[in-house]
Amino acid sequence: MTSIPKVISSAEMSAAEAKWITLKKIKYIDAAGHERVWESAERKTRKASGVDAVDVLAILRSKTNAFPLSTVIIEQYRPAIDKFIIELPAGLVDEGETPEQAAFRELEEETGYKADSLVELSPVIVSDPGMTNANMQLVVLNVILADQMETPKQKLDAGEFIVTRVVELSKLNDELKGKELGLFRETFDQTCFAEYSNRGYIADARLSHFASGYDLAQRISSTGI
Amino acid sequence: MTSIPKVISSAEMSAAEAKWITLKKIKYIDAAGHERVWESAERKTRKASGVDAVDVLAILRSKTNAFPLSTVIIEQYRPAIDKFIIELPAGLVDEGETPEQAAFRELEEETGYKADSLVELSPVIVSDPGMTNANMQLVVLNVILADQMETPKQKLDAGEFIVTRVVELSKLNDELKGKELGLFRETFDQTCFAEYSNRGYIADARLSHFASGYDLAQRISSTGI
Repeated sequence: MTSIPKVISSAEMSAAEAKWITLKKIKYIDAAGHERVWESAERKTRKASGVDAVDVLAILRSKTNAFPLSTVIIEQYRPAIDKFIIELPAGLVDEGETPEQAAFRELEEETGYKADSLVELSPVIVSDPGMTNANMQLVVLNVILADQMETPKQKLDAGEFIVTRVVELSKLNDELKGKELGLFRETFDQTCFAEYSNRGYIADARLSHFASGYDLAQRISSTGI
Repeated sequence: MTSIPKVISSAEMSAAEAKWITLKKIKYIDAAGHERVWESAERKTRKASGVDAVDVLAILRSKTNAFPLSTVIIEQYRPAIDKFIIELPAGLVDEGETPEQAAFRELEEETGYKADSLVELSPVIVSDPGMTNANMQLVVLNVILADQMETPKQKLDAGEFIVTRVVELSKLNDELKGKELGLFRETFDQTCFAEYSNRGYIADARLSHFASGYDLAQRISSTGI
């Protein structure tokens, strides 16, 4: 990173001008039989699979139990928020690709890890159904490492800047909730880090809810809450 | 429900015409120092709290342990998806209200349950940061019932139609993933249910990710995966 990303202007845009997303006015009949109107934002990029995107939960395992079950999360600047966002590896499903294939591809591109097998594919789910029609699937993949943790090289496009971090599954919620500060700290020089800290991290809701669920189950099974 | 909700038309809409959401063209400087453009959808309703919405994870408990720890989920028709969506109780934060207050209010309105105490308030998180600036907080609330499960009366606005269902936390993921079919079945007459089944249920990604995290922690702690 040679520069701190930042928004320089933000202006209302007509739907005609937009290339990636649009606004829709939806007329519908409600449960009482009345005609009503709803406003929704939609991606223009949905392909034949019918699924916009995938989230990838990679389970990193050591064949020799050299490290606890872990996962890899990413951090990238998001212009819509003007902050650095901590997310699961994710991406849009390309034409001619299944969501499962997209998950293997995105995991390798964004983190370098090559998945060994599919653990679980969620049904199609919707990201924010009061506001958009965006849909996705959560794909859980196994990444089996011979022994020690490895940090493979990412396969990023020019202009992509994504930081990865491996976290133990049992500590994921604490990390996201800031109980362990300094997430990603090592990737920035001192000037960048000061700026970065000032703006703060924000976690993606889907990652954060996954971590909250994981944490709640752990707490209930250990001490009760 | 006297009628099956359905979309009758959907048309592109100018940002000027929209009342609830808008499109923004964002110019920003990326990490390599280059100027780039991003497109984002935004709600026009954000109030002074700076937080658009809350999700509520209610933990339903019996003082006498008459039932296992449970939660309440809701189902409602979402025009943007043209299907019935299974979600956590949720809603927008009103003017003059904190996100915590919004959570207590929405839980009571949508499900009838009055919460007794706050368990946890997540940091601000973002719902779909590649597409929108929408943000929210997850609010975990305790609902303590004297003995048996109760099903209190909702406080819905005219025209609101929301179905509630109580689910054991340990079975939430199985229910969402359709391993236990018939979710909400009892609330529909036979004709409605046939139509409803044909269109299928879709779960909200945040609820689904919470359930996936909860389930994964349970499986790892019991049998390993």
